[in-house]
Amino acid sequence: MNKLKILAVFFFAGIGLLLFSAKEKNTNIEDEKIEQLLKQMTLEEKVGQMTQVTLEVISKGEGPFNMDKSWALDQKKLEDVLLNYHVGSILNTAGEVRTPQEWYEVIKPIQDVAVNNTRLKIPVLYGIDAIHGMYSAGATMFPQEVAMGAAWNPELVRKSSEVIAYETRACGIPWTFNPTLDLGIDPRWPRMWESYGEDPYLQSVMGVASVKGYEGADVSDPHQVASCLKHYIGYGAPRSGKDRTPAWIPETFLREYFLPPFAAAVKAGAKSIMVNSGEINGMPVHASKKLLTDILRGELGFEGVVVTDWFDINNLVERHHIAATKKEAVKKAILAGIDMSMVPYDVEFSKDLIALVKEGEISEERIDSSVRRILKMKYELGLFENPLTDYRKYPEYGGEKHHQLARESAHEAITLLKNEKSILPLKKEAKILVTGPNANSMRSLNGGWTYTWQGEATNKHAADHNTIVEALQAQSNNIIFEEGVKYPENNPDYKVDEIVDIQKAVTAAKKVDYILLCLGENSYTEKPGDLDDLTLSENQLQLAHAMIATNKPVILILNEGRPRIISSFEDKVKAVVQLYLPGNEGGNALADILYGKINPSGKLPYTYPRYANDLVPYYHKFSASTAHTDGNINNNHKIKAQYAFGFGLSYTTFKYEDLKLSSTKISSDDELEVSVKVTNTGEREGKEVVQLYTTDLVASLSPSVKRLRRFEKVNLKAGESKTITFKINKTDLSFIGHDNKPVVEAGEFIISTGNLQQKFELLDTKQL
Amino acid sequence: MNKLKILAVFFFAGIGLLLFSAKEKNTNIEDEKIEQLLKQMTLEEKVGQMTQVTLEVISKGEGPFNMDKSWALDQKKLEDVLLNYHVGSILNTAGEVRTPQEWYEVIKPIQDVAVNNTRLKIPVLYGIDAIHGMYSAGATMFPQEVAMGAAWNPELVRKSSEVIAYETRACGIPWTFNPTLDLGIDPRWPRMWESYGEDPYLQSVMGVASVKGYEGADVSDPHQVASCLKHYIGYGAPRSGKDRTPAWIPETFLREYFLPPFAAAVKAGAKSIMVNSGEINGMPVHASKKLLTDILRGELGFEGVVVTDWFDINNLVERHHIAATKKEAVKKAILAGIDMSMVPYDVEFSKDLIALVKEGEISEERIDSSVRRILKMKYELGLFENPLTDYRKYPEYGGEKHHQLARESAHEAITLLKNEKSILPLKKEAKILVTGPNANSMRSLNGGWTYTWQGEATNKHAADHNTIVEALQAQSNNIIFEEGVKYPENNPDYKVDEIVDIQKAVTAAKKVDYILLCLGENSYTEKPGDLDDLTLSENQLQLAHAMIATNKPVILILNEGRPRIISSFEDKVKAVVQLYLPGNEGGNALADILYGKINPSGKLPYTYPRYANDLVPYYHKFSASTAHTDGNINNNHKIKAQYAFGFGLSYTTFKYEDLKLSSTKISSDDELEVSVKVTNTGEREGKEVVQLYTTDLVASLSPSVKRLRRFEKVNLKAGESKTITFKINKTDLSFIGHDNKPVVEAGEFIISTGNLQQKFELLDTKQL
Repeated sequence: MNKLKILAVFFFAGIGLLLFSAKEKNTNIEDEKIEQLLKQMTLEEKVGQMTQVTLEVISKGEGPFNMDKSWALDQKKLEDVLLNYHVGSILNTAGEVRTPQEWYEVIKPIQDVAVNNTRLKIPVLYGIDAIHGMYSAGATMFPQEVAMGAAWNPELVRKSSEVIAYETRACGIPWTFNPTLDLGIDPRWPRMWESYGEDPYLQSVMGVASVKGYEGADVSDPHQVASCLKHYIGYGAPRSGKDRTPAWIPETFLREYFLPPFAAAVKAGAKSIMVNSGEINGMPVHASKKLLTDILRGELGFEGVVVTDWFDINNLVERHHIAATKKEAVKKAILAGIDMSMVPYDVEFSKDLIALVKEGEISEERIDSSVRRILKMKYELGLFENPLTDYRKYPEYGGEKHHQLARESAHEAITLLKNEKSILPLKKEAKILVTGPNANSMRSLNGGWTYTWQGEATNKHAADHNTIVEALQAQSNNIIFEEGVKYPENNPDYKVDEIVDIQKAVTAAKKVDYILLCLGENSYTEKPGDLDDLTLSENQLQLAHAMIATNKPVILILNEGRPRIISSFEDKVKAVVQLYLPGNEGGNALADILYGKINPSGKLPYTYPRYANDLVPYYHKFSASTAHTDGNINNNHKIKAQYAFGFGLSYTTFKYEDLKLSSTKISSDDELEVSVKVTNTGEREGKEVVQLYTTDLVASLSPSVKRLRRFEKVNLKAGESKTITFKINKTDLSFIGHDNKPVVEAGEFIISTGNLQQKFELLDTKQL
Repeated sequence: MNKLKILAVFFFAGIGLLLFSAKEKNTNIEDEKIEQLLKQMTLEEKVGQMTQVTLEVISKGEGPFNMDKSWALDQKKLEDVLLNYHVGSILNTAGEVRTPQEWYEVIKPIQDVAVNNTRLKIPVLYGIDAIHGMYSAGATMFPQEVAMGAAWNPELVRKSSEVIAYETRACGIPWTFNPTLDLGIDPRWPRMWESYGEDPYLQSVMGVASVKGYEGADVSDPHQVASCLKHYIGYGAPRSGKDRTPAWIPETFLREYFLPPFAAAVKAGAKSIMVNSGEINGMPVHASKKLLTDILRGELGFEGVVVTDWFDINNLVERHHIAATKKEAVKKAILAGIDMSMVPYDVEFSKDLIALVKEGEISEERIDSSVRRILKMKYELGLFENPLTDYRKYPEYGGEKHHQLARESAHEAITLLKNEKSILPLKKEAKILVTGPNANSMRSLNGGWTYTWQGEATNKHAADHNTIVEALQAQSNNIIFEEGVKYPENNPDYKVDEIVDIQKAVTAAKKVDYILLCLGENSYTEKPGDLDDLTLSENQLQLAHAMIATNKPVILILNEGRPRIISSFEDKVKAVVQLYLPGNEGGNALADILYGKINPSGKLPYTYPRYANDLVPYYHKFSASTAHTDGNINNNHKIKAQYAFGFGLSYTTFKYEDLKLSSTKISSDDELEVSVKVTNTGEREGKEVVQLYTTDLVASLSPSVKRLRRFEKVNLKAGESKTITFKINKTDLSFIGHDNKPVVEAGEFIISTGNLQQKFELLDTKQL
């Protein structure tokens, strides 16, 4: 608890000033080196640094799209790319999943050419999407971000990112495209699970923790990697819910909800940022000078590298139709503020950019400013001194310690949503039928970005980890397994499931005390993860109804990237446990919880909707939810969430009392101290997430019903009490006003935590 | 056809300058009278003019919410309201549905007190929501707007509004709250059907036609009424889909999609406008000076009366939380630009406003500008000369001529969406089972705002009109009726339906040649019409599956305010006919079409979605719909509409050829003439809606895949050809740019109509 408290202070107070001083010493020397280098560089060499290609470009055979085939380097292509086009960055994987040694063998020849054969010996910056674990054989796969959000424990996020950094460097890669800070505000969106949930504050705290974990005190440390904040900005809120489709986001709300996580992570020192592939209000973010330069550089003070997402400069032509030619697209993107183009299949970008500079359309100063940032990142990562880390120096890679942390993370993430008559935990003697397509699938436990893009090969690569049914069988001899419905092996389309034999499961149910019904989704990400109906699949619904009809108590296990609609049967199951995407240790962690070894403490990081067309986050405006309307019909139009944001049960119970405010009238420069006493009133030790919300009762732009401002996860022994104290300041009481600037306004507020609330009054109005 | 052509020119060219000159003569005299009157008025009398209360305020008994009870005037209350509070306007109905004579008897004592007993003898302005027919016994109920939009025939809109004006005046009421110009862009929204559909241009054309029909050449004519444009602005696009909930609409799109219908109708002379009850980007429209004054008055030049919606100044406190007190809310609303407050249950508004003026918070000049507009409207309506029209002078009220027009409108609205192997039209000898909750319901044919707010009493009040089954029985002796599922009588909640006996329907099906499956929705409007899942109700789906399982050919009749999801069975029915909400003649009109007396010619005025979470209008941006994405999965992310916008079949076929452009390179000041030859290639006469779309291939803000720019409904005999000519100008090629101003940009465009398309090039870029 003390540890947690110290950490909370650490995160909430401005973060890690200490850590910065070590780096400052080197800054001047580095800057000089960079300027020296820049002076020597030709335009072609500069533009090459701004060019990023995918590994397939230097692969043998016809490309692209050969991610499934075996891979071999084409030395000629490599030399062409590095010596003729001076490419500065390579990304992604291709071919089979590699061990660290195999990764070393992929990257070694690249760095050899870069460091030995290029004129200026600039190392290549290799990047990869290690988002919950490195793309490598035997790597530790943590819970995905949505689950890490559910743990409400920033220290776990920091530690897990630290491990991912270590294991990514073990593979010779110094740059991961993570954390994802897109707001998970829309359950239709196929990347909701790549965020820490729907709340801007939770997202900010976790994003900062992740950046700290990846980058550490000194990012040149061979155990750290550069982070990349994704996907600046507004990516998580497409109007249709589909990936990479247009968003309508007024600037006020862009700043109110979407900007704060990026601002916090930039302040925490993130080295790079990746751009939203979508368009906001008709403007693709990749072409928005306002967003990429005025706000990101000007207001947020970001000094790192801005990289495009996949193919996205070309997409200004192909997808967005705001440029007639690729060259025009390059011009728009570079002038907007892009530093590096993830081209990724060719070097056309560099040809176009060179031509634009030669024609005077883009100044060489503009090029220099991007190249300076890219070189600086390479320097900061220590690549000039050590272009390739050695896999032999990473003894903890994929080891027990890392897997323990992954298991601990899953323990804290898993969320108990229903537990009628304390049916859980179960006794080991209880006879259990395990059924459902998620019961025996490592793929669904992990989700996308696991070994491959869509994660479709996970069952093979994670075969030595326990699925749910394997984990239960490891702890009990009373487990029967009848799948009922399955995800066909090797089908990359997550939407497909098939009935195996529901009757067999029904028959098996007769022999057991409980049914563990494991439903949800298969793995996906990006556009392949788009959906048309948030309701759970027909086959899974059929299995659910059949299991319920047996009259045996059903325990529903949800394993899903986003909250699929379960309201047609949820009232008929006895317990509900949400796993999210808990990673390779998810099966074991679930078994620990089901058998009571671990007391669950996860809390939903999003609003779980009850209906497919009733999707509203908890921090909606008052007018989104009305208890009564005029007229002769009694209309209750309250939001009818299946489970609320921040909700989660425990095997013990907690009591909140003595909510105290340091004052009930404050001026905007005062700090408000809020304390509350929390007691474990049950019979076993447990962790509670104390959540503090504020409500601004009246404001010149309509306020939200409530907003999360602080939280702290505390551990309490049976009978133990602790008093938690939070400090609230004017930033927490402010909102983005009409002029798109933050303001606090005099008036009444409510502070709420647990089932308690108190009013206080802010005495003055002030622009922040 | 000539008539249609003339009309088209009439509507598209600036509209009715002729009509204005007659009125101009009176303007100066009126203005003088108004100024004279204003000078005599006390502050209290002025503020009274700005106050509108509901009829229940002057009713006997305890109010409010007594719309179902019998009604009697409370003379004392009336005198208090008019003599002490100087109230200038009354609205709505209360108690039983009235005949014109009964309405006369309601309004006569009101006007008697106003004209005889008040100091300045200013008549009361009575307003009512006559949106597809007057709220009165025996009135003609036309198809609702969504159906009128589906007819794609502005002349029918003009004529039907003319009839509604006549019948409203027959009841002594000179002001209707219609047309509704909210864009029907979201099928979840419970008032989608109150609009002419999802397209801004179609909405504009129809809105102008409706204003012309209501107001005529001279609105003081006792056959005309003042119109009220609803609901300015952006009401149709709440983020959650629920009524009166917050919208996120960037200004660019507010101007691109939502503003044009209002701009066109204002230009056509609409006398009043009602405000959107929702909030846009955090700002309730009722408090937005920018929207109500800067744009509406300043840019659109609107000179008429701005009235709030129901209770909406109070709602700035209660729903939106942007004011702490009602008085503060009044201040915000009046300073934003409200002229009249639909209070509606008391006179608190006037007390607050008087106090605000006395305290110097609002100037008396500000009050005068509103009162001037209200008095002007009363003058223009001729109320000073004739405060009450006499029901005895309206011989055509609810008569055959009016009903014929309603039937003709329904004929042109009804849309044939599927007709496998030309199963329709049917022979009269064919044995038909009619089933489904919409088969025998006048209520569902009409929708909300019919006799009562929610339309729940329509079966009683429209009992002398034919339901679907009655209409079929009137034309054939081979009709069997088994309801299967029903809407319980007198249940105001539209969502409730009940299984009667599906097995009985299944049994009956054995005896017939065809099943006419009548599904959809019961009547609703506003918040009671909110939904949580766009999919058709469970009971109706069950009936559909049972009918399909009989293997008898199923003809699906849809009778619904918005497109409910039918994709789970649509592929198994042989024909689909969309009625929308066709009004009291809808049953007859459907029978005429089913038996081939009338050839259907309606076209969908919206995109009919296939899935509950795949809701995108046809004019989406390119990036909303991609045929292919990168990677190893073949992802088709095209919009998967069940039926496209503008789609509708006929019993004949049409061929498009010879698409010709006057030039393939134009400058922005050129007019482009586009002609196309359309031939009826089938064997019977029919009407085709020739739709002309443009696509801007590249623009500085991402363009839409296409936009409707012109249309014309043409009648063609079998074998007949006609060449249709449209003129396109720079306004049609413009879009709202970054700076929120219209611009045309040089580059390639596509013109498309039917299955034809042609490219042309615009040579210059210009701000409009």
